[in-house]
Amino acid sequence: MSRWQLARRAERLNPSTIREILKITERPGIVSLAGGLPSADTFPVAALQEATARVLREQPREALQYAASEGHGPLRDWVAAELATQGLRCDAAQVLITTGSQQGLDLVGKVLIDPGSTVAVESPTYLGALQAFAPYEPEFIALEGDDEGPLPEALASARGARFVYLLPNFQNPTGRCVGAARRLALVARAAALGLPIVEDNPYGDLWFDTPPPPPLAASAGVGDDGGAIYLGSFSKVLAPGLRLGYVAAPKAIYPKLLQAKQAADLHTPGFNQRIVFEVIKDGFLRDHVPTIRARYKVQRDAMAAALDKHMPPGCRWQLPVGGMFFWLTLPAHIDATTLLPAAVEAGMAYVPGSAFFPQGGHANTLRLSFVTASPAQIGQAVAALGRVLAAA
Amino acid sequence: MSRWQLARRAERLNPSTIREILKITERPGIVSLAGGLPSADTFPVAALQEATARVLREQPREALQYAASEGHGPLRDWVAAELATQGLRCDAAQVLITTGSQQGLDLVGKVLIDPGSTVAVESPTYLGALQAFAPYEPEFIALEGDDEGPLPEALASARGARFVYLLPNFQNPTGRCVGAARRLALVARAAALGLPIVEDNPYGDLWFDTPPPPPLAASAGVGDDGGAIYLGSFSKVLAPGLRLGYVAAPKAIYPKLLQAKQAADLHTPGFNQRIVFEVIKDGFLRDHVPTIRARYKVQRDAMAAALDKHMPPGCRWQLPVGGMFFWLTLPAHIDATTLLPAAVEAGMAYVPGSAFFPQGGHANTLRLSFVTASPAQIGQAVAALGRVLAAA
Repeated sequence: MSRWQLARRAERLNPSTIREILKITERPGIVSLAGGLPSADTFPVAALQEATARVLREQPREALQYAASEGHGPLRDWVAAELATQGLRCDAAQVLITTGSQQGLDLVGKVLIDPGSTVAVESPTYLGALQAFAPYEPEFIALEGDDEGPLPEALASARGARFVYLLPNFQNPTGRCVGAARRLALVARAAALGLPIVEDNPYGDLWFDTPPPPPLAASAGVGDDGGAIYLGSFSKVLAPGLRLGYVAAPKAIYPKLLQAKQAADLHTPGFNQRIVFEVIKDGFLRDHVPTIRARYKVQRDAMAAALDKHMPPGCRWQLPVGGMFFWLTLPAHIDATTLLPAAVEAGMAYVPGSAFFPQGGHANTLRLSFVTASPAQIGQAVAALGRVLAAA
Repeated sequence: MSRWQLARRAERLNPSTIREILKITERPGIVSLAGGLPSADTFPVAALQEATARVLREQPREALQYAASEGHGPLRDWVAAELATQGLRCDAAQVLITTGSQQGLDLVGKVLIDPGSTVAVESPTYLGALQAFAPYEPEFIALEGDDEGPLPEALASARGARFVYLLPNFQNPTGRCVGAARRLALVARAAALGLPIVEDNPYGDLWFDTPPPPPLAASAGVGDDGGAIYLGSFSKVLAPGLRLGYVAAPKAIYPKLLQAKQAADLHTPGFNQRIVFEVIKDGFLRDHVPTIRARYKVQRDAMAAALDKHMPPGCRWQLPVGGMFFWLTLPAHIDATTLLPAAVEAGMAYVPGSAFFPQGGHANTLRLSFVTASPAQIGQAVAALGRVLAAA
């Protein structure tokens, strides 16, 4: 009889609550506002068909063979040039292509977190980051914040942390966007404390009226002796099923991230990298991304109107100026997890907010996605939520 | 000034020697026998073109959206059915699709290895496995072996190890294939010791005259209370640039591997999974894989003949009955690493064997791939190697 013995870090791996919720809400007849998925209507299928055919016609041997762990050279060049337009100066040699930006989070955790070391995160923050970091056994420090983002003075509580993990643009789950002044204050405070920044930016392109301020990494730097690692993704502007993201990292860290990447999966599929490069190389995203923004803005407006109309007194939310999510704070006595079955019964679903908090709690919060349901469905689902909340 | 501090495990991440060698040997005019790459001539480009077009025409929304961490259902079913033909009984629910089988190794390490715990490996063994396991800080136990594989009695030295990692089919780097009786003896001894087996089988389909004996996992079991985890790959029978592999694991381990997979990259590209399923679902590999075997056998024969003709006395090798590699043991006074520049100067390249040994040493060994060079190139490169060795 074989004795399988799990590593201690495996205790920190847990089934995703959200996964379970998504399974429930795949039932027909449910309007799910629970998913963190982009709208499939935004996938540029024709461009991908053309690019895929071209790659398999013109460079099949290269696209289908083993490839460099760093990623496809021209795609790394493209990323470095794109980051430069955001004020983030780095050499293509500091760009690592990853299997979705989720893998970037895993590599960052693997290379920087020791058991018992501390990592500072927003509270709430992206659940997938907590899941990526957790098996490396950090202690999480929850940063205090307000509607504009984490408080610069809260960084003092993170002194000595391996890094502070921040999503300044239309954060998942709250949708909040950190303003320019707050960004500079956060970077200055982090620098004064010697605190490295890991900046995650999957949603930055999805702004509705004006682009967000420059990334934190633009002032903290990802160059030779930079203070930030920056993570980006093609999942929200092209398609997540391609699993393509990237990391830009200072030279103090890059070689170790690269070695961890090589150990993790040798390299991200060259096939996918070459297809995406073919799609975007001549400026495709300049025309495509505005169509996503326009679509999501209509849906955001539909949800804003529905919330105004249907939410009972005592519920609070902020209007997101980009991204995919509304974040609701319910009256303190309402537990969003307990309430979920009633909501599903009423024909809609959301994600309870508790899982996004590194220390749990905050049972009276929930996340709504406005990008996968139509405006009419959004109206219907939010009305149903309003009835369920009023009854509670 | 930010203080980046590396995790202790990052010390165990190292630049790959082989990577460096491959860079050197990409120079024009060099016939490289160093790579571990399959021949690009075997990539089924037409079938992939057709399947890719079909996926993007018929199921673009599903293929391009986020997907289940377990993998694409029909592909998991296919894998379970394929394993059954090898005597390996498991439910599709125990199959996890991975981003290449390299990722399977990383997930196994993450879930099973604690710092200071022991892992038993063949000596030499696959370098990528050493690299995947190393950051989880195990102590490696090198199993004694002979030309037929690791010795069953050597497993006693691995008592208490988290697992023993074995590649019974045409191993990388030695090319050796473990016989049926040896396999049963290894499984019996491992079971008696309570020692879990991690079996890696990237090359099993590449046999030349007769198929290898059933996998170790067929007798150890990957079922409910099985004693083995089994790793497979599409890299050698379709194309590595798609990064598609799989793990079959007992129910005691599967949920943790799945959670680790989700934390690592959410899921393997659904696009790639659906394309590969479209290619293989109607039996494509039954016709395709024999063409790879026939091609590689011709190349194997060319290398065998060239070695017989050109190697100076004192060099030893075994005829591989499948796979991609010859393994050479040189006279004890010759250091293959020191000799490499002279070989490159003479127009050929190989991989020195030392890196494949968990405890290093064995400087007088080297690996030759016979699958990426033509028979004529193989003859020429081996002749050059012979001259360099004779001069040493």
